[in-house]
Amino acid sequence: MPAASSHRRLCVHTITTKPLSIEECLVEFPKRGVSGITIWRQALEGRDLSAVARQTREAGLDIVSLSRGGFFPATSAAARQTAIEDNLKAIDQAQAIGAPLIVLVCGAVPGQPLTESRKQITDGIAAVLPAAEKAGVKLAIEPLHPMYADDRSAVNTMRQAHEICDALGSPASVGIAVDVYHVWWDPELKSQIDLAGQTGRLHAFHICDWRTPTIDLLNDRGLMGEGCINIREISDWVEATGFTGYREVEIFSNRLWATDQGEFLDRIRDSYAALYE
Amino acid sequence: MPAASSHRRLCVHTITTKPLSIEECLVEFPKRGVSGITIWRQALEGRDLSAVARQTREAGLDIVSLSRGGFFPATSAAARQTAIEDNLKAIDQAQAIGAPLIVLVCGAVPGQPLTESRKQITDGIAAVLPAAEKAGVKLAIEPLHPMYADDRSAVNTMRQAHEICDALGSPASVGIAVDVYHVWWDPELKSQIDLAGQTGRLHAFHICDWRTPTIDLLNDRGLMGEGCINIREISDWVEATGFTGYREVEIFSNRLWATDQGEFLDRIRDSYAALYE
Repeated sequence: MPAASSHRRLCVHTITTKPLSIEECLVEFPKRGVSGITIWRQALEGRDLSAVARQTREAGLDIVSLSRGGFFPATSAAARQTAIEDNLKAIDQAQAIGAPLIVLVCGAVPGQPLTESRKQITDGIAAVLPAAEKAGVKLAIEPLHPMYADDRSAVNTMRQAHEICDALGSPASVGIAVDVYHVWWDPELKSQIDLAGQTGRLHAFHICDWRTPTIDLLNDRGLMGEGCINIREISDWVEATGFTGYREVEIFSNRLWATDQGEFLDRIRDSYAALYE
Repeated sequence: MPAASSHRRLCVHTITTKPLSIEECLVEFPKRGVSGITIWRQALEGRDLSAVARQTREAGLDIVSLSRGGFFPATSAAARQTAIEDNLKAIDQAQAIGAPLIVLVCGAVPGQPLTESRKQITDGIAAVLPAAEKAGVKLAIEPLHPMYADDRSAVNTMRQAHEICDALGSPASVGIAVDVYHVWWDPELKSQIDLAGQTGRLHAFHICDWRTPTIDLLNDRGLMGEGCINIREISDWVEATGFTGYREVEIFSNRLWATDQGEFLDRIRDSYAALYE
């Protein structure tokens, strides 16, 4: 395909086309105009990481990030240590495939106070930070929608993500992943994005849409344009900070996974172009 | 049943036992130790309101509130006027049954900016406020969980509810309904409850629980104790403001509606007693 057909800042997460193997993603993404790839760790299972790195380079795709680390909180010290070791492994994987960033879904434990979980998240990031810095891999705290506060993330707003960065002493390698699905409702969103720009913390930007009605808490996200999120306005806020990174399409959808994934990638490209070009 | 078996501050919403008619609620609630009732407007359809008021009194139940008004935002002025008229009707109904309070689920329009919807909510409340005051009926803005920001409520935090009260000039008749399901995740919750106490805005307190996993965005709430919400701690914050009103059990659950509603009321009473007695 000619270079002109690729969309310079369009990245797709491998989870978005979950039915495709990483090898199929490396064929289909460039063919459909995608320039960047965020690789989910599931997609790497059983693969030789240096081979994936080479194949991705040969496919002409930029590796934007590895998803996902995190899940630090646990009720026992042993389980928290296991989580830290898993994050150290993720850092090794990111380095091996040449991913400059790991997205952190921070974790939560049902019934454990959210304040305690956020403390454990802060401690967990502090524990893996030296390894990340040594590997040259950045970390991005992704605030998750409050509907995931029970068992997926005790970090539910950008303000809280900033507070964790502050508590860590604002290391340059720890920032925030802004996903419109999680934060679109937040009345503080613009000011917190501004702050992320000013502090150098805006590490990643994820897009998708919120459908009405949403029929599944996890796997009913919409393609951009299918829902109510002011994606373009939020994008403008992000760009206004000087952010020039990828716009990453991260969609979990039983409905869309059931469609032809090549055609789905074409729809992603078209809705991306309608938003930005 | 002897008076000693009733739980002084236990109120149940008619929607909680949706399979029961209002007449059945008036029999079952007192028999199962419930002292207060919040009546949903659906339960009043086709009923003589003064008869409902009399029967409720005769059943020994306090009417805590009428649920629900609100849904003010709309894209056309005509539709917003229709919403205002429906809220005026709710005020008439509340007066007719002797309900001292109407709970407002404020509304939202998918794709309309949340800031615009909040303005329309403020205007809508202002439009019906004189009628509410004349009728001696208070209004309670209920912040809804951010997962309902698309089409149910553009008011998703207590802070936003306070801001609307402020914008209205802090009339004594407009306050806030705190429902643990909607606000438990909010890092500002305690301070916003404190503020509601200081400003006389704490008009209602609703309880239920958040299940993990939650399998339906609307109708999978848990009975107190089935989930992760720190109900007792939030209750303590509410009580510390001087609140002595009812603790209202509001549960939407396909699972629990499918069970015997008398036994369900016994479970509600037992879980209430375990929390508070």
